[in-house]
Order: sequence, then structure tokens, then C-alpha cells
Amino acid sequence: MAWVVAKRAAAASSSSAMKSVSAAAAIWMRSYAKVALGTDIVSAAPNVSLQKARTWDEGVSSKFSTTPLNHIFKDKKVVIFGLPGAYTGVCSNKHVPGYKENIDKFKAKGIDSVICVAVNDPYTMNAWAEKLQANNAIEFYGDFDGSFHKSLDLVTDLSSALLGT
Amino acid sequence: MAWVVAKRAAAASSSSAMKSVSAAAAIWMRSYAKVALGTDIVSAAPNVSLQKARTWDEGVSSKFSTTPLNHIFKDKKVVIFGLPGAYTGVCSNKHVPGYKENIDKFKAKGIDSVICVAVNDPYTMNAWAEKLQANNAIEFYGDFDGSFHKSLDLVTDLSSALLGT
Repeated sequence: MAWVVAKRAAAASSSSAMKSVSAAAAIWMRSYAKVALGTDIVSAAPNVSLQKARTWDEGVSSKFSTTPLNHIFKDKKVVIFGLPGAYTGVCSNKHVPGYKENIDKFKAKGIDSVICVAVNDPYTMNAWAEKLQANNAIEFYGDFDGSFHKSLDLVTDLSSALLGT
Repeated sequence: MAWVVAKRAAAASSSSAMKSVSAAAAIWMRSYAKVALGTDIVSAAPNVSLQKARTWDEGVSSKFSTTPLNHIFKDKKVVIFGLPGAYTGVCSNKHVPGYKENIDKFKAKGIDSVICVAVNDPYTMNAWAEKLQANNAIEFYGDFDGSFHKSLDLVTDLSSALLGT
């Protein structure tokens, strides 16, 4: 119950990078909602920012800064995957550990960053990453207001599972 | 940055109970938004339910059940307090520990339940409660869609702090 995959299709090396992402990501694809491989996420979600996972105190000291998507993807090969929410079942037990355990394979394929994003605030994302002991391997970002997911048409009503949209 | 206080003003013993709540709650009142002491919360938020904090697996096994407010308050003297969100600063460091450390004083005053609620899903609330080691003293509930806070006119836009409304 996750969407997965992405590489900004802009850099000269994007073709080979995308093949690498494709090979790596196919292993973990258990998606109900997904972004088509090759989608130019930065163009699809213009002016959207994510919120890097951090403690509340770090949030205060950073003046609650956000990270524009084009900074995240700039000159990088990135795998980004999304989950219904922090602390949800399969995501905690399988999806995130799957990426964490295979981080060396991603790096070997030239991936600079593996990113996990969910519709949560960055403080919850940070606590969840710490609990999963995954924050050294994977970068966690919050999409607290869902603007990133909305831009990519990834909004799903999960209120029946006591999660938001 | 919390709202605090509440006792359903219905039971025959409500007057003395409210005095007790008032005395106990005054210590911790650091509110920007609050519900007036004596507000009949069940009447003010009819047909609203909260989501008892639990793990995802417990959520699944409970079929994602929710708890109607009138069940929470039925024949009980309750102190309920709200916070901007799980894992936020003062709330984690002061507010919740304050209630936890004084739980015996609440009990001595005849309070049956001390409840913490925030606009988070119940899985995040559960993880936060565990981290604070407060889940034995305090009951944690999520208000994932904000319906409880909306009913009590407690909605505050905290997007500048990377939290939702």
C-alpha cells in the first residue's frame, strides 16, 4: 500500500538513472497508487516543498523551513517512495526496512538519495524514522498538508483506517 | 500552547467534580485556546468520536473502531486536555509529563480519567505515548480528522509550524 518510484527526467544522465531506478524499484513495488516511472516530479508538482524530518527543537531552530522539491532533486538521482502514514503496519514492517536493507544496492546503482515521504508532520516522521533506525540510510520528509500528494494526484481517502486523506 | 479542562456537566455530582477539575487544571493552564470550564463537551460535540491510541495491528484487529465521546464521559469524571500535536516541544517536555507526574493528585480528587487528545492519527498518538512512558497514567486519543476540535471551535492554523489545522 505504497506508491514508489521517481526520477526527475531532466539531467543528461537521466535515462541510465531511470533504468537503474526501475530495476531497483520493481522489487519493492506493491503499489495501489503510483507515479509513472519517468514522471518529472518537479514539473508535476511545481512550487511544492516538503518538510525534512526533524525534532521539534530542530524545527524551531530552522525557523520551520521547508525544502523545495527542486532542491531535493537538483543534480541528483533520487528514489522517492510514499506510504499511507507513519506507524502504519506494512510500511513499518516491510516497506521502509526493505529500502533500508537494500540501501547499498541503490547506492551501487548510482542513486544519491532514497527518500520516504508521507502525509505527516516532520516531527512525527522523525520519531518514526528513529524508531525504525532507518534515518541514516533513508531521508524522511513530511508532506504535512498533502500538497505534494495532491500535485501528483496521489490523494487517497484513508479515513476508514483512521488516517486522513 | 494547549487547551485544557473539561467535565461533562450532567451527572448529579458534577458540581463538586468540576471544582476538583478546576483546582487541578489551574496548575497546568497555559492555554491559548481553551474550552470554558463547565462546557458540556458531549453536547457541544454531538456525534463526534475519538480514536483510542493503539498500534496499527491493534487498529486492524479492532476494525478501526472509534470511541464516541459520550462513552468516554459516561458516568465518569474526566480531565481532557489538548495539544497542537504529537512530538511537539513544550507538549512533550512539559504538558504531558505534568499530567503524568500529578496523576495521583487527579485520582485523589476523584478524577477517573485524564485524557490527552491531539489532531493526529491513533498510531502516532500511541507511539508518542509510549515514548513519553505516559500511557499507563494518561489515556491518549487521536482526532485524526479534527472533527472534535472543530466542534469545540478549537481549530487553529498551525501550518507555519509545519502542522496542520
